[in-house]
Amino acid sequence: MTGEGAQVIFTPSGRRGRFPAGTTVLDAARSLGVDLDSVCGGRGLCGRCQVVPAEGSFPKHGIESSGGHLSVRGADEAEYDRLRGLAAERRLGCRAEVHGDVLVDVPPESQVHRQVVRKGLPVRDFVIDPAVRLYEVEVERPTLEQPGGDLARLLAALAAEWGLGSADQPLEADLDVIRALQPALEAGGYRVTVAVHDGRFVTAVWPGLHDRALGVAIDVGSTTIAGHLANLADGSVLASDGVMNPQIRFGEDLTSRVSYAMLHDGGAEQMTLAVREAIASLLRGLANRADVPLEDVLELSIVGNPIMHHLLLGIDPIPLGSAPFALATDAAIRTTAAELDLPAGPGARVYVLPCIAGHVGADAAGAILAETPYLADEVTLLVDVGTNAEIVLGDRRRLLAASSPTGPAFEGAQISCGQRAAPGAIERVRVDRETLEPRFRVIGSSRWSDEVGFAASTRGTGVTGVCGSGIVEVIAELFLAGVITADGTIDGRLAARTPRVIADGRTFSYVVHDPAGLDAARGSAGGSSGPRLVLTQNDVRAIQLAKAALYAGARLLMDHLGVDVVDRVQLAGAFGSQIDPLHALILGLVPDAPLERVTGVGNAAGTGALIALLSVEARREVERVVRTVEKIETAVEPRFQQHFVEAMAFPHKTAPYPNLASVVQLPPRLPGDTAWTAGADRGARSSSRPPNRRIPSMLVQGEDSTR
Amino acid sequence: MTGEGAQVIFTPSGRRGRFPAGTTVLDAARSLGVDLDSVCGGRGLCGRCQVVPAEGSFPKHGIESSGGHLSVRGADEAEYDRLRGLAAERRLGCRAEVHGDVLVDVPPESQVHRQVVRKGLPVRDFVIDPAVRLYEVEVERPTLEQPGGDLARLLAALAAEWGLGSADQPLEADLDVIRALQPALEAGGYRVTVAVHDGRFVTAVWPGLHDRALGVAIDVGSTTIAGHLANLADGSVLASDGVMNPQIRFGEDLTSRVSYAMLHDGGAEQMTLAVREAIASLLRGLANRADVPLEDVLELSIVGNPIMHHLLLGIDPIPLGSAPFALATDAAIRTTAAELDLPAGPGARVYVLPCIAGHVGADAAGAILAETPYLADEVTLLVDVGTNAEIVLGDRRRLLAASSPTGPAFEGAQISCGQRAAPGAIERVRVDRETLEPRFRVIGSSRWSDEVGFAASTRGTGVTGVCGSGIVEVIAELFLAGVITADGTIDGRLAARTPRVIADGRTFSYVVHDPAGLDAARGSAGGSSGPRLVLTQNDVRAIQLAKAALYAGARLLMDHLGVDVVDRVQLAGAFGSQIDPLHALILGLVPDAPLERVTGVGNAAGTGALIALLSVEARREVERVVRTVEKIETAVEPRFQQHFVEAMAFPHKTAPYPNLASVVQLPPRLPGDTAWTAGADRGARSSSRPPNRRIPSMLVQGEDSTR
Repeated sequence: MTGEGAQVIFTPSGRRGRFPAGTTVLDAARSLGVDLDSVCGGRGLCGRCQVVPAEGSFPKHGIESSGGHLSVRGADEAEYDRLRGLAAERRLGCRAEVHGDVLVDVPPESQVHRQVVRKGLPVRDFVIDPAVRLYEVEVERPTLEQPGGDLARLLAALAAEWGLGSADQPLEADLDVIRALQPALEAGGYRVTVAVHDGRFVTAVWPGLHDRALGVAIDVGSTTIAGHLANLADGSVLASDGVMNPQIRFGEDLTSRVSYAMLHDGGAEQMTLAVREAIASLLRGLANRADVPLEDVLELSIVGNPIMHHLLLGIDPIPLGSAPFALATDAAIRTTAAELDLPAGPGARVYVLPCIAGHVGADAAGAILAETPYLADEVTLLVDVGTNAEIVLGDRRRLLAASSPTGPAFEGAQISCGQRAAPGAIERVRVDRETLEPRFRVIGSSRWSDEVGFAASTRGTGVTGVCGSGIVEVIAELFLAGVITADGTIDGRLAARTPRVIADGRTFSYVVHDPAGLDAARGSAGGSSGPRLVLTQNDVRAIQLAKAALYAGARLLMDHLGVDVVDRVQLAGAFGSQIDPLHALILGLVPDAPLERVTGVGNAAGTGALIALLSVEARREVERVVRTVEKIETAVEPRFQQHFVEAMAFPHKTAPYPNLASVVQLPPRLPGDTAWTAGADRGARSSSRPPNRRIPSMLVQGEDSTR
Repeated sequence: MTGEGAQVIFTPSGRRGRFPAGTTVLDAARSLGVDLDSVCGGRGLCGRCQVVPAEGSFPKHGIESSGGHLSVRGADEAEYDRLRGLAAERRLGCRAEVHGDVLVDVPPESQVHRQVVRKGLPVRDFVIDPAVRLYEVEVERPTLEQPGGDLARLLAALAAEWGLGSADQPLEADLDVIRALQPALEAGGYRVTVAVHDGRFVTAVWPGLHDRALGVAIDVGSTTIAGHLANLADGSVLASDGVMNPQIRFGEDLTSRVSYAMLHDGGAEQMTLAVREAIASLLRGLANRADVPLEDVLELSIVGNPIMHHLLLGIDPIPLGSAPFALATDAAIRTTAAELDLPAGPGARVYVLPCIAGHVGADAAGAILAETPYLADEVTLLVDVGTNAEIVLGDRRRLLAASSPTGPAFEGAQISCGQRAAPGAIERVRVDRETLEPRFRVIGSSRWSDEVGFAASTRGTGVTGVCGSGIVEVIAELFLAGVITADGTIDGRLAARTPRVIADGRTFSYVVHDPAGLDAARGSAGGSSGPRLVLTQNDVRAIQLAKAALYAGARLLMDHLGVDVVDRVQLAGAFGSQIDPLHALILGLVPDAPLERVTGVGNAAGTGALIALLSVEARREVERVVRTVEKIETAVEPRFQQHFVEAMAFPHKTAPYPNLASVVQLPPRLPGDTAWTAGADRGARSSSRPPNRRIPSMLVQGEDSTR
């Protein structure tokens, strides 16, 4: 110990200073601006200021550090250890006093602005920096001589203890807080904890120490509404849940809901009420699951496509139903839970992510925030497939967005054997290249249909239909097996080889599952119940239309960006996460890319909502990024039609698919079409192979056993 | 016309510049920063930009000005003249183009920040500067190429046309505005008018040009709630009205309402609901009277005593009922009409003036704002008498405030013959110094009781009781007539001289009105109906207690300020406006002051609310001033008790009343008391006069025939 006072060095910040003996580590940290958390204001209660003193010589820093250079553990730390546990090497920063040179590490969980790697949820690294923080303060009691206002004394304490508010911009308090303040002061013996939103608004007050501030990130989908309940302090997700969107009773897809609003007086209001009630029940369910009071939910962040966005906010969605598809607003919206009739803490704030364009909503903004294509050097194609596909393309230099009218085929609608993804739905399909026999897996069972025990494992649900990913797979597999040609025709000549290809008027169909007929006696699937599931020529056409629209939208953005290839494809949303990237490439839903770089990214929109829930900086980031996104309106681009027509073929009439062709042997292109690998060897590789040649079983790499 | 372009000089600002021929006067004014109003943005619709070109030589300015140097009146001005009238010498600034040197006067009503002398209402001069302003803009239509958000296009237009919002602080819009925007754009052909609050928030939107922004100033009294509906643009009051405060059913005075809240679960909530419903009905009534839609009410400003303030806002008033009388907040409150369940425009904002202390409320702040003692060189005493008197004393250097527990006697409660000020109540009394006979006037009639036609004029109401001002007058008159002594005793010896002094147990009473007895056959009052009205010794004691409390509070503030005299006394509130200043001085309600400088100032609190409604600067001013007010708590000041005891005598036991004594001959003080004029001639003047000597009739100057 040299010079005046003891030297204290903090890691990882490297900040250092000298302090008089007896200074607490927390005070030292504060005076150096070291990021060391505290909610209770240094009263040994909250445990947020835990630090780890180092033992040993640190010649680079010129000190000998020792935990012994701090005061010994006192009664408060013993009590904290007893109640909540305090590791042997740890100290409470507000209780440990400096009595000699010491190097003190601030572990990540004691930092306010900590870098967090989320476990469990597929969330990228980001810095937790919630809009709401809690502060415990001691408020002066009023006296007859100095009565003043309770609020004024609270704000004075917040300024003195926490440096909150300024003469320029004093803190403001919600009326609800003013109402609750006096009882809280009484109950807490003039110690209260307040929630401060955005460093400016006091939005909640509790008696004494209150160490729980919660938030919920909500993704309002057309079909389902998903929510994550998170602790705002550390980002931990306490519960996740989903509910059906009850607006379905007004129309299955977005277009029919807009029509409902147009055709029924008060129709939009009914749908607004319905979605708010569903979110309310979601919020109650989440609080229930996590066993926390709903009153501690102080923040909500919300994403949704433009129509869900407008309906939730009570804005007429009708203008979104026809050109020019103008949004009421594309800006982020900051409002209150009360304004949206959502149950939460009385002062709970709502952040709705910005929309991008009339068909590219806050859900796309959330997906962008989650996947950060705007930070990448590689050109990323980010696709969220719903009734409309929202498509984002670009890199750190430019980002473009469009939507494409894929229709509901990918969600199993308009498909004769289709159904929504639910237990009993076929989600994975393989077709034997020789026998042309299918095998499949259904949601709710981990067994393939040709495995022992399949029938038993599906007894509860049966095999009820084929969901989006199953339809993509059965068509892709039939294409690889030669049953479906590159132009999408079910080849009737194969009726001679297999009873599964059957005539259906002037076209042909493929029998996927026939429990009472073909499959009655055969294999393990035979014992399962359910309807006969047949893929018709019309079904294939519907998928062709959908995938051509998706491809054409992506291709249009590539034209605008001036690229012929993309480096990375990210498939978001429920369908995007279900489909197998290889099969998506085989059908040509998206342009060619290295297979390992075509990935499902889960509910990226919801993940973006979660990030925005937990980080003010992320909100600024997404608002800044969406302003730079160039909006491309597919409806007014003549090239879109041309791209659409060429994209009807599997995987495409002309576009090269070299990456795909390197991992799977594709049937030949139609006469006159270009080769899969483009350019020089046009037609050479594909034409040398017979259409029905068996494709090796590298498809195993596309199998997903984690569902 | 010399130099480049024509020279334009604006008066009264004196700003000048040269402009190319064809520049409109409005554009010239804007580019010079001249304060010239416009709502329609220069489209010849709103008429706000009217100017008067001068004719003649202006050598000081070096120009020859002529209306002929402007373009001739065109079709738009003719149309405006036809529809709304345009004086011959006037031009629309947005239509008149500059074609030669011209001096242009901007009349006050065309200035945005105009100095306004209010007519009709007793409002001091102030600059109208409302928080809300209207702006008409043309918004770009969305296109397929540039769909964007309606709000973003609106904000862009507001920035381009009106310079509103900045990159740092963009305008924000209420969710209601976002909801209403698209229909308004459609209906208005993409021209809309918006209301912008505080230069930051878009709070309302209308299709096309909308030229009416209204506000209501509300004074929430314990007994009545008064409101003024005003045009925010010019400060004109379109309607004024009052309703009873229905909280009266929970308790007549403030203390009993707090008790009700303490004794009944949900009692405070009931009272909150009641006062809000009353204000709602007041608002509807005002809109009805002025024949304007309630939706155009965009601002409310509210004053009230601390308990009314808390109950209206839904804050528990119980802490205000006992020491240390801590307010939930003493800061001004900015909230919304929706938050308080008050009917108005969907985006209407509410401004509640700040409170000063637990018993000195936003009503006192309003009175301070209306009467501006903080700008005066003279020491002003400003008193608002209710159940608690709110007392403010000071000048531009220091301002002090206190409340004093006067009780409800001044409002006619606790007085045997007392009643609230209402038709039929005696409000003026004169007692003949010789005969000791009274004559009086009642509310609702302009005749004195000894005038012909009095009985007929009161037939509808009768004579029902004596209100606060009547009680003050009858006691003061009886004191001057020698019936009541300086220590407040009704002198029983006078029963020998008049049948109106009657024994009442061990004390005596004075019969003010006895329609079935003494007054049955006498004079014109005889014919009037109603009960026998008797002033008892207890009634005199009740007034003594009340007035002593009021005086003691004022005197305590004088001690703190270090003054022995005040230069000016202002009596505010319903009672303060009713009472005759001379009688108030005779009874010693307030310290001595020059009679002409003791004035009733009407409902100063309500006037302050109106000023705050119309001026943002006034809001800042009152917030700044109340922070500097020194709060004196009478309950903890030992001197208060001493002052109180000495103030029981009429007008006072020891304090000199030289100003009063110079205009009225007072009965002698009690033996040993100091002279009215203090110091040297102590006792000399007063003791030389017999107690019952007739006082000359200068009391006429105290008569008020304007009620």
